[in-house]
Amino acid sequence: MSKQFSIGVDLGGTNLRVASYASGTEFLESIQMPTRLSAGREEVVRDMCEAIQSLVRRNYGGRKLAGVAVASPGPLELPRGILRNPPNLPGWDGFSLRDAISQILRYDILIESDANAAALAEQRLGAGKKYNVQSLCVLTLGTGVGNGLIFNNQIWSGTNGMGGEAGHIIVSNDEEAVCGCGGFGCLEQYASASAISRMAREQFGASAPESAKELAILAHGGNPLARGIFESLGIALAIALTGLINTLNLPLYLLGGGVCDAWDLFSPQMFHELERRSYVYRLTKPDCPNPAFLEPNKTYILPAELGSSAGLLGACLLGLEYKPAAYSSGSSKEDMLVH
Amino acid sequence: MSKQFSIGVDLGGTNLRVASYASGTEFLESIQMPTRLSAGREEVVRDMCEAIQSLVRRNYGGRKLAGVAVASPGPLELPRGILRNPPNLPGWDGFSLRDAISQILRYDILIESDANAAALAEQRLGAGKKYNVQSLCVLTLGTGVGNGLIFNNQIWSGTNGMGGEAGHIIVSNDEEAVCGCGGFGCLEQYASASAISRMAREQFGASAPESAKELAILAHGGNPLARGIFESLGIALAIALTGLINTLNLPLYLLGGGVCDAWDLFSPQMFHELERRSYVYRLTKPDCPNPAFLEPNKTYILPAELGSSAGLLGACLLGLEYKPAAYSSGSSKEDMLVH
Repeated sequence: MSKQFSIGVDLGGTNLRVASYASGTEFLESIQMPTRLSAGREEVVRDMCEAIQSLVRRNYGGRKLAGVAVASPGPLELPRGILRNPPNLPGWDGFSLRDAISQILRYDILIESDANAAALAEQRLGAGKKYNVQSLCVLTLGTGVGNGLIFNNQIWSGTNGMGGEAGHIIVSNDEEAVCGCGGFGCLEQYASASAISRMAREQFGASAPESAKELAILAHGGNPLARGIFESLGIALAIALTGLINTLNLPLYLLGGGVCDAWDLFSPQMFHELERRSYVYRLTKPDCPNPAFLEPNKTYILPAELGSSAGLLGACLLGLEYKPAAYSSGSSKEDMLVH
Repeated sequence: MSKQFSIGVDLGGTNLRVASYASGTEFLESIQMPTRLSAGREEVVRDMCEAIQSLVRRNYGGRKLAGVAVASPGPLELPRGILRNPPNLPGWDGFSLRDAISQILRYDILIESDANAAALAEQRLGAGKKYNVQSLCVLTLGTGVGNGLIFNNQIWSGTNGMGGEAGHIIVSNDEEAVCGCGGFGCLEQYASASAISRMAREQFGASAPESAKELAILAHGGNPLARGIFESLGIALAIALTGLINTLNLPLYLLGGGVCDAWDLFSPQMFHELERRSYVYRLTKPDCPNPAFLEPNKTYILPAELGSSAGLLGACLLGLEYKPAAYSSGSSKEDMLVH
């Protein structure tokens, strides 16, 4: 088999990243540009395809292109890659991302949710590789909260790709905690970067720190209001994790996203509440929470390892595994997709 | 291949059922007896093994025994079948059910949780077969609440069999709602038969109806206290299902167990709250909630179909698939087990 490479794309609400990849945790090359949302979705797709094509042409010493995969914010219907009211891509509701890209490239591509792509990368190349774990859940605590699930080395994206919304597990009966999803009391209202800003405004009023980082500095200095916000975050995470752990009994739950920089501020309360609330966690609690290797039959909750590259790396991995066909609009392509 | 049969066992806290099985939804023969918990666990295992051996000897016209599988209440560590504080089998904590049975039978057997066995039967022979669904979740609302999960035709029993405790998803922040699991606010405190009795005593005091059936008669007659209890049950189920649906995006969730006889009393509130609270449910809600066939890419919540035989049927199915080996205590048998 001749040497191969793949192209991965991480479509974010702020940045669009495209990379070529062969193996490991490094890219062959990567291109980053702003996601020009104001220019319209067709322009964003055009930017993306130009970057893809420029990397495809690079050829990398005669390597053969295996495939192209795009990690997209959700919710999105898979395998067709149709966006469904994506909060971070306003105006993209109902847009068929796969069709739009494939029509320009003239070959088929794979779409996966950014959260599942990140979970795949963590399992194959990050904490899952380090600890030799075949199944895991990644909770990404960023602007919003999402999840990716890997069961037995395979992404679980649900019956039509609409899973991954663990940010909307209900953790409170407070009807005032209205969520962007239309519900209330969702994890995302307590454990996202936006939630931290909101809680800071509620607690500090006009003197609220401007960023989560500043809030963390206050908390480290002992400010009780700041510490209380991170403790609420820990409790909300424990309630959501209790449901996941009791139902799924996975060996490893990883927490990723910018909010996890404050791991030392929220995790003590999270572990305290988990022990109090989760039956299965109590029965499977490891002796050492942050070990060099994972004891069998235990439940670990650890920070994710791959940082902000996880989604892009996952897309690259999917591109390598994916066997594209010539694109023909309208034909059933379900069977060509990794699921 | 010569014709085969299997033996399935459903070990309940009240009844012990053993059946021989070849195909379909009927047993070749079945034996039911009380579970003699007061005589001790060794006696219960002896009763079980005698029943198994009597059915094995029947031979059924030269059929070959494929294997024996036992559905047990949880939590239990798999594949070794070690019970971990099972609330319905007092005194069995730490008991290695597989070893105890295999030592008597002299061949290896398979242990699975009763909830997962029931889910497998529902997928292969019940609603999953009727609707051609490869993945589903069964929530069993009985004395307690448990769950079974099937992903792509396979049981998901977690990293060491300790999943299936969806009854302990947190649905309320009420610290007074103390649960047998040691936590509080668990689904089981609102959606089990025991919870219904407790809520009835709280609402009606000394004049509380004696059974869930009598409570249902009152509710059908318009009694607002009785109706309120079933509505609370619907809300609690909706909160737990919101987490499962948003995270897993399965095509089908089945509700089984005796509590589901009151489906018409709790399901309207359940569906109302689901639509209000679950993002993914709103996006995947079927036009017809109870159809002749399932539309693709929708989320269905339906009553389970196989009733109280589901666990026993599931054990029989697992027995057919399982290839036992001669039992040798202490050897690693992980690779011989269906997982």
